[in-house]
Amino acid sequence: MTQFEITILGCGSATPTTLHNPSAQYVTVNDKAFLIDCGEGTQLQMRKYKASFGKLLSVFISHLHGDHVFGLPGLISTLNLLGRNGDFYVYAHEEAEYLLNPTLNFFNKIIRYNVIHEKIEKNCLSVLFENNSIKISTFPLKHRMPTNGFLVEEKEKPLRIKKEMIEFYQIPISEIKNIKNGADFICRDGSIVSNNRLTFPAGKPRKYAYCADTAFYPDIIPHIKEVDVLYHEATFMEQDIARAHETYHSTAKEAAEIAKMANVGKLVIGHFSSRYKDLTPLLDEAKEVFENTELAFEGMTISL
Amino acid sequence: MTQFEITILGCGSATPTTLHNPSAQYVTVNDKAFLIDCGEGTQLQMRKYKASFGKLLSVFISHLHGDHVFGLPGLISTLNLLGRNGDFYVYAHEEAEYLLNPTLNFFNKIIRYNVIHEKIEKNCLSVLFENNSIKISTFPLKHRMPTNGFLVEEKEKPLRIKKEMIEFYQIPISEIKNIKNGADFICRDGSIVSNNRLTFPAGKPRKYAYCADTAFYPDIIPHIKEVDVLYHEATFMEQDIARAHETYHSTAKEAAEIAKMANVGKLVIGHFSSRYKDLTPLLDEAKEVFENTELAFEGMTISL
Repeated sequence: MTQFEITILGCGSATPTTLHNPSAQYVTVNDKAFLIDCGEGTQLQMRKYKASFGKLLSVFISHLHGDHVFGLPGLISTLNLLGRNGDFYVYAHEEAEYLLNPTLNFFNKIIRYNVIHEKIEKNCLSVLFENNSIKISTFPLKHRMPTNGFLVEEKEKPLRIKKEMIEFYQIPISEIKNIKNGADFICRDGSIVSNNRLTFPAGKPRKYAYCADTAFYPDIIPHIKEVDVLYHEATFMEQDIARAHETYHSTAKEAAEIAKMANVGKLVIGHFSSRYKDLTPLLDEAKEVFENTELAFEGMTISL
Repeated sequence: MTQFEITILGCGSATPTTLHNPSAQYVTVNDKAFLIDCGEGTQLQMRKYKASFGKLLSVFISHLHGDHVFGLPGLISTLNLLGRNGDFYVYAHEEAEYLLNPTLNFFNKIIRYNVIHEKIEKNCLSVLFENNSIKISTFPLKHRMPTNGFLVEEKEKPLRIKKEMIEFYQIPISEIKNIKNGADFICRDGSIVSNNRLTFPAGKPRKYAYCADTAFYPDIIPHIKEVDVLYHEATFMEQDIARAHETYHSTAKEAAEIAKMANVGKLVIGHFSSRYKDLTPLLDEAKEVFENTELAFEGMTISL
């Protein structure tokens, strides 16, 4: 199966600690890589966890709080020093230009590649990136400022042809594509071989959703329905739910409720408040609602 | 003796590696703390090495290459989140505003303390900070863009009075200050006790100089003459001297030559190019010229 992997580079919240870095994730699908969020120190974490700079196509910024974006100037400078020449896309709200403009106009006067700011519309559903095999789309979350979640999904895959059948029925190459798309095969003598004799079913397209930062917000359910893995912020414990509501963050239990309602495969919680040294109580609170929950940690690799 | 200590938070050069962070140092003198340079991840390194955020008065930025300044937005945000209310001074060239303006106007809309940008004049000698006991001044280095070195020095200290003499001669409190400043004491019977019977000599004022980034530049000698410790950049080995000259950096040997000419107490070299995994050859090359040389490393504490 092709690679679909997420490495957690940072899963702390606004105040960095010795335990957690600010938000960033490195997502690899079919040998292409993307960053989701880019808190301060992201490039250092990429080095630490051996995440390739060369494979990196683009970065998706959920919102413009510093702990999700202050790693961008350093990353852009380093890509330049490393001799990048392919385009680099930054998907972010319009105001990201306040950080990008000085980065590009003053701090990297000679830049050898294009940094293209693709603006994410606020409060909109939209497809941001698409190629033959994957699609990355965005949906609004509920936070103190406009904030977007991201859905990374494989496209419907073609059927997988049984190699031995190609020889057995002398199937010409010109027919392969049709069969992979579900067609039956008509032999020279006019007899019909039904498609299900010739193919294996395609694997289910895999899906990963990222939701940080956000208050408890069931409106996102249709967008993250039945994803294999959901990363959802869980800044607070239940005892601090008043603070969670005040700051438009979620508790671990609320994250689990979203996971349950969306019937996801696995929930990974993160964006932990620096007030908790031991995260076990957050995990316990989530697991009471949704058993298949894990705590994010720096260096964690999630394979779908 | 009062504390005069430097903690190296980062001593790598432009491209961060798993071995080194970008430039930053935390300087503590008499319970007041200052940062010199603030590369990406400085606040994370402060956490790691338990450098107090509360004691931090100001930051001195040598020049506006990203690896010396990209940690500033995150630091300013974190000081805000930690509830700082005292003024915070950023000493930097005028163009630092390209980074400070978005940090203050967009990324910290509600900021509860004053960030005051004190402009460092280019190519000038000047005193930037002064209180009763210390003075921080700046002098120009030679780099691809305007760059400044910093000299942190104790002021001339008063003589230290011998406590037993206060009792012996019944010296009134009103006279103590005069004696510390060198006055003799006149007893009630008119007899004179000479100052050197009453006091210990004051310790020699300690001095620390920071020179990064810079080409080999003997013009700085008068400003760093006989400092206790000189931190001088040594980006390259002698075999790469052509590259050093091209990029306005120094070799380890050149740093040592400066140390020797300035007759400093100790040389600490840093700002190492990411091309060297083993730094021993740089140390060896420096030691051939100036024996009392040490390699900087993250977490190193230099006590003066």
